[in-house]
Amino acid sequence: MEIKPIAFYHGPLSEKFGTPRQAGIVPDLPGTVEFCEGYEPAMLDGLEGFDYIWLIWGFSLNRPSDAAGDGPFEGVASKVRPPRLGGNEKMGVFATRSPYRPNPLGLSSVRIASIDAASGQIKVLGADLVDGTPIFDIKPYIVYADSHPEARSGFAKERPEARLKVVFACHEDATDKTLRQILAQDPRPAYQDDPTRIYGLSYNGKNIRFRVEEDVLTVISID
Amino acid sequence: MEIKPIAFYHGPLSEKFGTPRQAGIVPDLPGTVEFCEGYEPAMLDGLEGFDYIWLIWGFSLNRPSDAAGDGPFEGVASKVRPPRLGGNEKMGVFATRSPYRPNPLGLSSVRIASIDAASGQIKVLGADLVDGTPIFDIKPYIVYADSHPEARSGFAKERPEARLKVVFACHEDATDKTLRQILAQDPRPAYQDDPTRIYGLSYNGKNIRFRVEEDVLTVISID
Repeated sequence: MEIKPIAFYHGPLSEKFGTPRQAGIVPDLPGTVEFCEGYEPAMLDGLEGFDYIWLIWGFSLNRPSDAAGDGPFEGVASKVRPPRLGGNEKMGVFATRSPYRPNPLGLSSVRIASIDAASGQIKVLGADLVDGTPIFDIKPYIVYADSHPEARSGFAKERPEARLKVVFACHEDATDKTLRQILAQDPRPAYQDDPTRIYGLSYNGKNIRFRVEEDVLTVISID
Repeated sequence: MEIKPIAFYHGPLSEKFGTPRQAGIVPDLPGTVEFCEGYEPAMLDGLEGFDYIWLIWGFSLNRPSDAAGDGPFEGVASKVRPPRLGGNEKMGVFATRSPYRPNPLGLSSVRIASIDAASGQIKVLGADLVDGTPIFDIKPYIVYADSHPEARSGFAKERPEARLKVVFACHEDATDKTLRQILAQDPRPAYQDDPTRIYGLSYNGKNIRFRVEEDVLTVISID
C-alpha cells in the first residue's frame, strides 16, 4: 500500500537528539501541522469540538537501509533497547514504540492549541516529532474508544519525570520554559555520564551547548 | 512511502455491515491478529505486560477508486456523514474516523486476551475490524501518552449505547452473547426504518437474517 503525506509537522527541534520520546512528555512544546497542497478548509469542519488529535506519521530520519528487503520484517531487528530501560534491556519491537519497526509509522496524540482551517494549519502542543516530519493521517481523539486510564503499560508505567535542574551559564533564553522542559528531561543517551562532555542541541535554529554533572544541566552557550 | 502488511486480523464478521464502528463498542468481540511470514516470536517479548495494543490497519474494503489520483487529497470528499449523526449532518473528514480518507489507515486500541508468540498470534477483544483486514503496525498502549480521559470528543462524546432488544424467532445461537451485542448496536444505516425489510449479516460464516420494529430486533433465521 502506498501512502502519501497529507501534512508536515514544524517545530523547534530539528534532530532526534532532544526531541521528547513520547507525546505529552513536554506538554507545552509548540508545533504546527501544515497541510499539503490540495487540502480543503472544509476537511477540518467539526474538529474544533475536540481537544486532541492523533497523528500517524513517518519516522523520516531513519536510515533508508532500515527498511531494506522485500518482506515486511527483512532488515528489522526483532528486539530493541528502549531508552527508558537505560539502554541495557531488550524488548520485542512490537512491545515498544521504537522507530526501527517493520513499517516506520509513528503514532502520537497531541493537544490542539488552535485551528486555522483557511490557511491549513493546526497549532498543537506536546508533540514528540522532529521538524519536517511527514504526517499521513489525522484523526480526532475519541475518549470512549481511545482512553484506557487503567490499562497496564508494561515497562512504561510512569510518565518520565523531568530529572535535571537546568541552569544557564549564559543569560540568553534563560526564561524559555519550553527549552527548560526539553533539557530537564535529560536528552543524553542513558549510558553516557561524563561531566566533561559537551552536548549540542538544535532548538529554533540555535545551537544550545550544555553539559551535565550529577543532576544539574548547565547551558554553556546559545549560538 | 510504501507500507506492507505485517499481520492480518481474523474475526467473525466478514462485511462492513454489522462490524462495530469503533473499537470497544462490542467489548467482548473476539478476534485474532496473525503475523505474516518472516515474523519472529522475539518481536513480542515484553508485550505481556500491556493490557491493550494499537493496531494501525488498512480499510481494505474501500473501492479502489476512492484513492484515485496523484495528490493525497484527490478523489477524497472533504466532508463525510458520520453514522452517529444519523447520516444527515456532514463533518470534515479529519474530524471523523471515516474510512474514506486520503490515506485509508484505521486506528484501533484493542484489549489483549492472550499472546501466543510461538505461533505468531495475539487474541484480542473489541476490535472494529472486518475479517481479513491487513495490519501495518502494532504498538503497546502507553497510558501516560495515549490516555486522555478528560478530553472533549466533539460529536462523539458518549459511547453508543446498545439500543435494541434482541429476540430470536429461531432458537439456534440464542445464547451467543457476542452476536447479541453486535445486533443490539443496530447495524442498520441511520436513515432506514422499515419494519418489513429483512437484513442479512455475515457472522462466523453464517447468514443471520433479521428485521427491526421499533426497538426490537428479531432474528428470523440463521443459515
